[in-house]
Amino acid sequence: MNNQKEVHIWYVRYQTEKVKQLSTDPRVTAYQLQQAEMELEKAKQRVTKSGAGSSSSASSNVILKVPKGTRDFNPAQMRLRSDVLSKITEIFKLHGAHQIDTPVFELKDILTGKYGDDSKLIYDLKDQGGEILSLRYDLTVPFARYVAMNKISSIKRYQVAKVYRRDNPAIARGRYREFYQCDFDVAGQYESMIPDAECVKLLDEILSCLDIGKYLIKINHRKILDGIFEVAGIAPELFRGVSSTIDKLDKTPWAEVADELKDLRALTPAQIATIAMFVNISGPLPKVLNILMTNWEFMACELARQGLDDMMLLIKYVKSLGIPDSRVVFDLSLARGLDYYTGVIYEAILETSAGEESLAVGSIAGGGRYDNLVGMFDANKRKVPCVGVSIGVERIFSILEQKRKDSMKPFDVQVYVASAQKDMVEHRLRLASMLWDARLKAEVSYKPNPKLLQQLQYCEDTNIPWVIVIGQDEVARGVVKLRNVKDRKEEEVSETDLVSEIRARLGISVADSVKPKCLENGVGNETTK
Amino acid sequence: MNNQKEVHIWYVRYQTEKVKQLSTDPRVTAYQLQQAEMELEKAKQRVTKSGAGSSSSASSNVILKVPKGTRDFNPAQMRLRSDVLSKITEIFKLHGAHQIDTPVFELKDILTGKYGDDSKLIYDLKDQGGEILSLRYDLTVPFARYVAMNKISSIKRYQVAKVYRRDNPAIARGRYREFYQCDFDVAGQYESMIPDAECVKLLDEILSCLDIGKYLIKINHRKILDGIFEVAGIAPELFRGVSSTIDKLDKTPWAEVADELKDLRALTPAQIATIAMFVNISGPLPKVLNILMTNWEFMACELARQGLDDMMLLIKYVKSLGIPDSRVVFDLSLARGLDYYTGVIYEAILETSAGEESLAVGSIAGGGRYDNLVGMFDANKRKVPCVGVSIGVERIFSILEQKRKDSMKPFDVQVYVASAQKDMVEHRLRLASMLWDARLKAEVSYKPNPKLLQQLQYCEDTNIPWVIVIGQDEVARGVVKLRNVKDRKEEEVSETDLVSEIRARLGISVADSVKPKCLENGVGNETTK
Repeated sequence: MNNQKEVHIWYVRYQTEKVKQLSTDPRVTAYQLQQAEMELEKAKQRVTKSGAGSSSSASSNVILKVPKGTRDFNPAQMRLRSDVLSKITEIFKLHGAHQIDTPVFELKDILTGKYGDDSKLIYDLKDQGGEILSLRYDLTVPFARYVAMNKISSIKRYQVAKVYRRDNPAIARGRYREFYQCDFDVAGQYESMIPDAECVKLLDEILSCLDIGKYLIKINHRKILDGIFEVAGIAPELFRGVSSTIDKLDKTPWAEVADELKDLRALTPAQIATIAMFVNISGPLPKVLNILMTNWEFMACELARQGLDDMMLLIKYVKSLGIPDSRVVFDLSLARGLDYYTGVIYEAILETSAGEESLAVGSIAGGGRYDNLVGMFDANKRKVPCVGVSIGVERIFSILEQKRKDSMKPFDVQVYVASAQKDMVEHRLRLASMLWDARLKAEVSYKPNPKLLQQLQYCEDTNIPWVIVIGQDEVARGVVKLRNVKDRKEEEVSETDLVSEIRARLGISVADSVKPKCLENGVGNETTK
Repeated sequence: MNNQKEVHIWYVRYQTEKVKQLSTDPRVTAYQLQQAEMELEKAKQRVTKSGAGSSSSASSNVILKVPKGTRDFNPAQMRLRSDVLSKITEIFKLHGAHQIDTPVFELKDILTGKYGDDSKLIYDLKDQGGEILSLRYDLTVPFARYVAMNKISSIKRYQVAKVYRRDNPAIARGRYREFYQCDFDVAGQYESMIPDAECVKLLDEILSCLDIGKYLIKINHRKILDGIFEVAGIAPELFRGVSSTIDKLDKTPWAEVADELKDLRALTPAQIATIAMFVNISGPLPKVLNILMTNWEFMACELARQGLDDMMLLIKYVKSLGIPDSRVVFDLSLARGLDYYTGVIYEAILETSAGEESLAVGSIAGGGRYDNLVGMFDANKRKVPCVGVSIGVERIFSILEQKRKDSMKPFDVQVYVASAQKDMVEHRLRLASMLWDARLKAEVSYKPNPKLLQQLQYCEDTNIPWVIVIGQDEVARGVVKLRNVKDRKEEEVSETDLVSEIRARLGISVADSVKPKCLENGVGNETTK
């Protein structure tokens, strides 16, 4: 390794840190961040170039990092994540949904033309001979492909999996390039708004049970949006483009959005004024409905009336489902970026309750109705209408991680097998094996002759509540010392009673554990004990 | 869509079916399968070409398939899979392991030079500007990267995730391009064989609890293999190559392996004869040890003696851990393909008990000690010795799917809310909401005015045990009819008692359900009911 290369590597580290700092600083603009990232890329290329020539020994000079916008999860983080995911999954199951899974990549053609402007964010795989593949961008398009391919006419499914977007990461805001989505969708020929309402109910159940603070579910309808555009006299072929500009309203002030409508979408001042009037309307469902229904120009539009009919049903059902008015808003500025929505759309946002004013900190879930997506995959254009909701759990993880920083501990070992003397490995292993076979969570030191004090210290550090301590004397008499780590009291227990004694102390009922859980379906081999 | 294109598409379907049939036929050779697959690729290219020109409307002509070697999982399959994964995870936790997660892709440099010949099977991502990435090939290298990057000196971790290999798929044999691995590894400076023995114990626990039939855990040691090569007079730089040829012995007859040793590895007949003698040795651990210890030439080799010392310790510990001799074999022909192993290696195989002779049907788990891998990532060459085991669950899924074909049902909804009359949507939703809020699994028809018979039929078809039936009269009196789907008996229950009555009938204790599970950590918003 030459000196110059060391300098290059050092500079990469420095620049990596700098980018990390910038990305968490709210005052930094996207442009500044991009500049810093480009500088980092250049620095990395210098390292790669300076390393050329020392091929085989170079592997230890590999820059140790995860790909941009991704991260590892340590045990404490994983425990929180699996807690959250299992709570969400449980609610999916409450509603009778079935789990499916699809590959992480799809044929590129499947994803093409589904995401509008965002298609540029799709990760492609290298052409190594064979099919042209891309990593999935969401779980909705693969689900539609699944429904069409298997000629399914109705299904209520959930899927929990990672999706991939080559977006500019914003770590502090919980935006990554690899992230989990938890999707619930109902596919089938249902002429009612009942599944749409169930999605809102399910979203409310999930958010209210996750302890993430106050939230708001914004609802709108693509047909109402399109009705507004029609009223404004905009040509139908411009609808989706105008829609995706309006979608920026949650992050961008109106003035900038208006500029884009003028410059990029070529709308007239009058058209923009009409849109401005409508997208400012937001409030409880019945109130907004009333405003719209007294607007004769709007009510003259067939498309808009269809949307309103849907929304009136939705209001009724949302009420029947017991969702409080305070958590649902009819927001005419909600547009959602993706092309495929055709009916109701919704989005959940978190509010930080900073005294008087509550500040929206970003979307944590979204969804809507997409009645044409499955048909796009079907050779006979057979339509299967769908509606669904997608929980963006990364932001939820970030929030809960902040909240629980202190209490996140990954350990829950129940018993430790320790020895007070030398040459006890085999006896320690024999007892540990007895505990494992009885489905008790147990650990044992990997050292042949560990010191007793170190073993006890480990239990205190990692909150293991019980320790079995053995020596030659105990082994000879077929007993163990059972020590309570907290109060340090020891009792003698016979080896034969050991399992039941520990279960009793841990409050595990015999029914739960006498029969190891995995024996339910019978065992192929003889049991080990 | 033109006529010729239709013919092309039809031919792709035909050829797809043919490849599927061939891949499940044991008489078909790899070459024949490859030919059929190439024909399929050509056919697909013809479709793509004939479709050029009709760009935007072409999306419905997309060939609906998942990428080669991958598959979707339907709800029944997913239930089995999550059963199996949760049993495995539970045993990982019994041993005090912590879960981590890493990104699905790594910087390509991280994976380079870790897999020997198999590196050609790595999936690369397209260079879209930025970093050069590859999909992970296993969970071991990302784990070593994680340990090095976070400067961890000891950890016992598990990870359950999909890995990717551009291998020739063999569906009938459970070989896919996307598949789950369940890995358990112990990293740290342990001078003993205790963690190695724990891995064998854990593997035995998992396999014995999965109801997959008889299995065998083969064990060997890289230093013993290298000792054999030394005794045979082979140059050290050839060891890994010879090793990966010998690794084929489980699928290939000795004659072919011997040919490869001669032609590809350039060994002399005498060298091959020495290897032949050793790799034929296999049997219970103590027996094989005795054979080796009486071979003076072998015992004169320092490397071999180190391996034997390890194996002697392992025998003792495996015995202490209560693993029956009948399930463990010391097999000198076991080599394992991957470059990074340095000590004990093991592999579990399934045996089909076809009367007298048992036929090995393939490896379902493997692992071993790799003491240098973390050091390859560390700038200061700091070593962290590791040992681990990886469960290849796809084969296990295939076996269990075959066994449970009839009994795989994805449903477990507990109550259905039905109505006997029209215009009851809002009342059905109100009652469903009540059940969901009480954490009961409930469903309700999505039709505004479903027929009672259809609703009851659905419950019978999907094994939902209880139905609530309501009409105007019941609603007025604040009661429901609670119907047992099996014996069709109905009782009247008041709405206020409904939840507790259903819980009682389902045998759910109040403690389990009175407090919805997700309220444990407090609720941010007011509760919905």
